[in-house]
Amino acid sequence: MNNSLLSRFIPKESKFFPLLKQLSQIVLQAAELLIDSMEHDTSEKRQEYYRKIKEAERKGDQMTQLVFDELGKTFITPFDREDIHDLASSIDDVTDRIHSASKRIAIYNPRTISDSGKKLAMFIQQGATLICKAMDELETCSKKKSKLQEYCQQLHELENCADEVYELFIMQLFNEETDSVELIKTKEIIQELEKTSDAADHVGKLLKNIIVKYA
Amino acid sequence: MNNSLLSRFIPKESKFFPLLKQLSQIVLQAAELLIDSMEHDTSEKRQEYYRKIKEAERKGDQMTQLVFDELGKTFITPFDREDIHDLASSIDDVTDRIHSASKRIAIYNPRTISDSGKKLAMFIQQGATLICKAMDELETCSKKKSKLQEYCQQLHELENCADEVYELFIMQLFNEETDSVELIKTKEIIQELEKTSDAADHVGKLLKNIIVKYA
Amino acid sequence: MNNSLLSRFIPKESKFFPLLKQLSQIVLQAAELLIDSMEHDTSEKRQEYYRKIKEAERKGDQMTQLVFDELGKTFITPFDREDIHDLASSIDDVTDRIHSASKRIAIYNPRTISDSGKKLAMFIQQGATLICKAMDELETCSKKKSKLQEYCQQLHELENCADEVYELFIMQLFNEETDSVELIKTKEIIQELEKTSDAADHVGKLLKNIIVKYA
Repeated sequence: MNNSLLSRFIPKESKFFPLLKQLSQIVLQAAELLIDSMEHDTSEKRQEYYRKIKEAERKGDQMTQLVFDELGKTFITPFDREDIHDLASSIDDVTDRIHSASKRIAIYNPRTISDSGKKLAMFIQQGATLICKAMDELETCSKKKSKLQEYCQQLHELENCADEVYELFIMQLFNEETDSVELIKTKEIIQELEKTSDAADHVGKLLKNIIVKYA
Repeated sequence: MNNSLLSRFIPKESKFFPLLKQLSQIVLQAAELLIDSMEHDTSEKRQEYYRKIKEAERKGDQMTQLVFDELGKTFITPFDREDIHDLASSIDDVTDRIHSASKRIAIYNPRTISDSGKKLAMFIQQGATLICKAMDELETCSKKKSKLQEYCQQLHELENCADEVYELFIMQLFNEETDSVELIKTKEIIQELEKTSDAADHVGKLLKNIIVKYA
Repeated sequence: MNNSLLSRFIPKESKFFPLLKQLSQIVLQAAELLIDSMEHDTSEKRQEYYRKIKEAERKGDQMTQLVFDELGKTFITPFDREDIHDLASSIDDVTDRIHSASKRIAIYNPRTISDSGKKLAMFIQQGATLICKAMDELETCSKKKSKLQEYCQQLHELENCADEVYELFIMQLFNEETDSVELIKTKEIIQELEKTSDAADHVGKLLKNIIVKYA
């Protein structure tokens, strides 16, 4: 039995965890770019940040593809194939959503980003940090799951906070904004930010399922 | 072999069916709250109903999580693990969509709910009733599948009716509504209602696949 | 062992490939109807084309259902059950998106379809052609994968082009369109066209995973 064949039957745990960690680092990087982008109100600066976030999004896509390629080639995985697939996809979805929000800011070019929008971006960055921490715990979660559970809980609380900010902002927007084109821009940007926070919470939900199954 | 270990190898059919029935009851409850909410045009009442529907949505989430937890722990399931997972998710999606529609009514606070909107809510409630009936048949569907097939067919017909109402309404709205902010509110609320009806039809489609596989 | 039972254990490769080819032909047919529809600016003509595309969409749904039924009944499939399921779904999604775009054109009835909109429809038709070609290669992809890889690459390039056209158009629209209702119509139609191109690219992504796993 030659080595390369043998190696296909040997647990490949070590491959997936570093990839998932890198994937979560990309989310964090994109989230930080999003926050920074909101400090600028010119079309040029917004497009500059959008391009940077687009690069992060592409790196995320490639990294997710690497995970899928590994899954296709590896016989033994630390968790069910499907769970790793869904987890990687869900983490990359957060980057995709940040990319969408940033794209809307760049191409809609609203007058300004509201404080509520900035607050949501902060929640997203906090969520990204939690996902990074969760990926650090994943490898050892069968031994100690309490930290991982806590991060999931915090992701869920962030989503609740984001939802509240979003709802209040929309109510106010429809009451106060008289320029309907500006209303459309602002509404859709804040909706995309809210969906991003949802996507981060979704990672937490998948992690909770993984804890139940394996920890 | 101790009992608790043994029990993990024994069919757990009985656990999933009651959970799926309860999940469908929550859809029906939310649909009825949605209909009732449309009888009120004040912001306060709309938010009151939204809060009630939010509670139903959370119960639905918890119930779906229970199904997932059971799937993670149970070795033998009445259907493929994945089919139960998707079915539970799809039923809970209907509640989620009702929640979204209700949220839009509460936070957009449109002047009024159109007759078309009310008609769609009626279709949704009828769809929820069909899903409840379908869940009553599921356990015995390998013996008699005709009723279940009929409910799937009726769910599909409801979706076609909903689609027709939706299309006519949107055409009329764009022809007649001159207030563009009111147009945005009304359009998005009716779109969410149409998606809810779609989600109910999706449950029917999954059930049809289950019938082909197991009945 | 009787023949019909025996036949259930015999590879059914031949069944899936023709179904997938037919499914991709439906996408192409719908894409061509979409292009033709854009040559007309009357509500009547738009609805006429929408009805034709709706027929294509229903045929696509039935064909996808046939694939699922086969998957439910067949013991041995050329690829993993799940991969065929996802591939068929993703191809049918392109038709569904074309249907959605056409529906919006018919029921929003905008003044005109922009050149950017027409360009996106051309990309979608080119994407549909690539999907058809890819389905012709799929059966033999374990022997020669280079053509299939090339089609996936081209699908991805089309999506990048579509994205660029979309972004430029939206920026221009928000700068120039003063009629907010017309802006809403045009924006949502172009967004749906962009999502259609995304859906075609998604088929390419699934195919790339299949190549990695089996070729």
